[in-house]
Amino acid sequence: MSVTAVVLIKAKTREIGALAAALAELEGVTDVYSVAGRYDLVAIVRARRNEDIADIVSDRMHALPGIEDSETLISFRVYRRSDVEAGFGLGAES
Amino acid sequence: MSVTAVVLIKAKTREIGALAAALAELEGVTDVYSVAGRYDLVAIVRARRNEDIADIVSDRMHALPGIEDSETLISFRVYRRSDVEAGFGLGAES
Amino acid sequence: MSVTAVVLIKAKTREIGALAAALAELEGVTDVYSVAGRYDLVAIVRARRNEDIADIVSDRMHALPGIEDSETLISFRVYRRSDVEAGFGLGAES
Amino acid sequence: MSVTAVVLIKAKTREIGALAAALAELEGVTDVYSVAGRYDLVAIVRARRNEDIADIVSDRMHALPGIEDSETLISFRVYRRSDVEAGFGLGAES
Amino acid sequence: MSVTAVVLIKAKTREIGALAAALAELEGVTDVYSVAGRYDLVAIVRARRNEDIADIVSDRMHALPGIEDSETLISFRVYRRSDVEAGFGLGAES
Amino acid sequence: MSVTAVVLIKAKTREIGALAAALAELEGVTDVYSVAGRYDLVAIVRARRNEDIADIVSDRMHALPGIEDSETLISFRVYRRSDVEAGFGLGAES
Amino acid sequence: MSVTAVVLIKAKTREIGALAAALAELEGVTDVYSVAGRYDLVAIVRARRNEDIADIVSDRMHALPGIEDSETLISFRVYRRSDVEAGFGLGAES
Amino acid sequence: MSVTAVVLIKAKTREIGALAAALAELEGVTDVYSVAGRYDLVAIVRARRNEDIADIVSDRMHALPGIEDSETLISFRVYRRSDVEAGFGLGAES
Amino acid sequence: MSVTAVVLIKAKTREIGALAAALAELEGVTDVYSVAGRYDLVAIVRARRNEDIADIVSDRMHALPGIEDSETLISFRVYRRSDVEAGFGLGAES
Amino acid sequence: MSVTAVVLIKAKTREIGALAAALAELEGVTDVYSVAGRYDLVAIVRARRNEDIADIVSDRMHALPGIEDSETLISFRVYRRSDVEAGFGLGAES
Repeated sequence: MSVTAVVLIKAKTREIGALAAALAELEGVTDVYSVAGRYDLVAIVRARRNEDIADIVSDRMHALPGIEDSETLISFRVYRRSDVEAGFGLGAES
Repeated sequence: MSVTAVVLIKAKTREIGALAAALAELEGVTDVYSVAGRYDLVAIVRARRNEDIADIVSDRMHALPGIEDSETLISFRVYRRSDVEAGFGLGAES
Repeated sequence: MSVTAVVLIKAKTREIGALAAALAELEGVTDVYSVAGRYDLVAIVRARRNEDIADIVSDRMHALPGIEDSETLISFRVYRRSDVEAGFGLGAES
Repeated sequence: MSVTAVVLIKAKTREIGALAAALAELEGVTDVYSVAGRYDLVAIVRARRNEDIADIVSDRMHALPGIEDSETLISFRVYRRSDVEAGFGLGAES
Repeated sequence: MSVTAVVLIKAKTREIGALAAALAELEGVTDVYSVAGRYDLVAIVRARRNEDIADIVSDRMHALPGIEDSETLISFRVYRRSDVEAGFGLGAES
Repeated sequence: MSVTAVVLIKAKTREIGALAAALAELEGVTDVYSVAGRYDLVAIVRARRNEDIADIVSDRMHALPGIEDSETLISFRVYRRSDVEAGFGLGAES
Repeated sequence: MSVTAVVLIKAKTREIGALAAALAELEGVTDVYSVAGRYDLVAIVRARRNEDIADIVSDRMHALPGIEDSETLISFRVYRRSDVEAGFGLGAES
Repeated sequence: MSVTAVVLIKAKTREIGALAAALAELEGVTDVYSVAGRYDLVAIVRARRNEDIADIVSDRMHALPGIEDSETLISFRVYRRSDVEAGFGLGAES
Repeated sequence: MSVTAVVLIKAKTREIGALAAALAELEGVTDVYSVAGRYDLVAIVRARRNEDIADIVSDRMHALPGIEDSETLISFRVYRRSDVEAGFGLGAES
Repeated sequence: MSVTAVVLIKAKTREIGALAAALAELEGVTDVYSVAGRYDLVAIVRARRNEDIADIVSDRMHALPGIEDSETLISFRVYRRSDVEAGFGLGAES
């Protein structure tokens, strides 16, 4: 079983590149997107349990300089195209 | 070259499962997460150009029943762990 | 292992009592508080996995009449007084 | 008679674990949840009267380091499953 | 013992006068102010217990035509000038 | 003639009790409620003219330590139960 | 004595011209500005007492078609250049 | 031709009186209202061109101590009662 | 002399392409951008006077189907690179 | 191919003129508007790829003094009048 979270991040504007690169190096962080609009970065985090997500976000992400605010969206399920599911056995995350 | 977008979606609460499954079948949509919190779904969309993202979101996603509101975050760059980059030649998206 | 969620609910004002009573009857819902302020009801939900929380909130709660909007806060951990922990083996939820 | 309150807390992100543990030790605080989303912690507080809730939140909770903002939802009534009520004589809180 | 609540009300603009007069007739409602600004009416409600406040606001106030939204602020304590307190034995509400 | 205003106050959380007591001593302030929810204190102010309300709020209230923000709702009219009106000659405030 | 109020109005966009003209004809309305930005119209209203302002705004303005929302700012005082005051005896409004 | 703007101002609460008086002395500022509610002051500014409004607001108003935030609503047209128009030749501002 | 305005538009999501094309045909509209994020379209409008901007936005733009909300930002000045200014005599707009 | 972005900027009010002039000198910035209302400046930025927009906004714009906050709207397409398109070969941006 595993849990995925989408973390929406507001960052100090001049540190976005370095912060994104550092976030991407953290264990459990699979993708970091620098984005235009209401947020500056979106990180996809994957861990075994909800409380591991908390540790990654509170302890490791927020230890990096440059995050002003973040909001974590815990994923209930991941949906991918059914032919992909056929190939990889995906579907509900568990 | 390609562009990735993170689409934050508010949906009619009782249709979330069916909507998520339908979104995941759309071409260009790589992952759909049903999430807890301020939004109901997060979709990752990948296309050749910004205007292709617009077509997917406005024309195809919003043609499905159940979306109340959505906000598209166009990605500037994707960051992934450097050892992964080494293997897959990723880094800045282009 | 289990997951707890705190669900903040805005309800149609004249149906709060009946809605609260009906919510409290749902399997997985342990406590429902009718409250003063920004929200009308707070429900504590407990289930085996994140996706079971989604099913309770989207499928069963929202099937009841009277909910206008809800926001689910997935709990990372539950903290209780240490002497209680001693007695009941609580602590991190897992 | 007694009063229950649900306290929604925004905290300094790096102090959430320690703060939650300290909150849980306060008299009158029965459960503390660290949560994902718009808030960081949710505390359930139980006291004899409304003004005792005020004392716990303003004087004791806010004396702890790490709370940035909090909003207290005073509970009007607690609803629990009727078979549980049968066993424990619960229902309206009073 | 008694509880006071301050109820902030948004009303349909053309029904404010009639609504205010009707609210003022409800048992437990001691004062209704029609006001300029963010809200349209402010009602002061006094009852024996928190749950009686809920009954007045949800059942009786919202049964009147014209309320669009309301938010109830439960009072912890009432403070009045000390010489007044001397005369009337007021202070903390209980 | 006289004017009543309802002043909604956000205060530094640890100074609410002392602030409320000090506000209640100010001339023109008739009641101060410490409340749960979106605001911390609600003060009822009564003066001869609108500009006297301004003097009480800007000059005297804000001279006290602990107010972070306030919003004044000038009352157009006060409504009270008609039998009370009969006894006290109240009704529109003027 | 007199009271001035600044009324900020959101209107149905296609009716702004006709609404503004109709508002300007109401007794007590001295100026109406159609504006760019967060609001559509700003009306300056002058009356003898606060409650007369309420009557103009609730009863007469909102009887006109096209107003979606309005917020009334009651003026405490009007300030004008001192040489103008010398000529016209203005100053605090009373 | 001329342009009118309505400037909505949030001010440091204890400096409102002095700030309002100073604003009223600025060339181009015709009226300043201290108000109750969401804003603290409303200034009416009149100048030859839009860019002159910018100079008055950014350079001269914000050089005065006490303004925390302001938002300028540029007026498209001024509407006044038709009999007044008859007398003064007003109507569309130009 | 001329005035430029930046009009931020929220549109019904499925009509964005047709609406944008229709907006671009209106006299006075020089550029229309379909955009990702908080707004759906941004239109640049140029006219002789502020009131002509009002006519374009209220009468002509809002006559087209699909606009849900719009907010007009009247430009004080346009700034372009100085070498361009040298060539085209631009600078402050007037 | 090229990308256009509309950057909405909140600036320190007293530095708007100098900031606007400095922004207009940056490579990739084609127009800067100082505006009335919710934002202070609007910059139109044009670059080859999304990630070049990020570099201009994060690295070069935010290196200038005076920007408090900014939000970038990436353009999907630019629409201009069809006769102009005929002359200049415009239309979808690519």
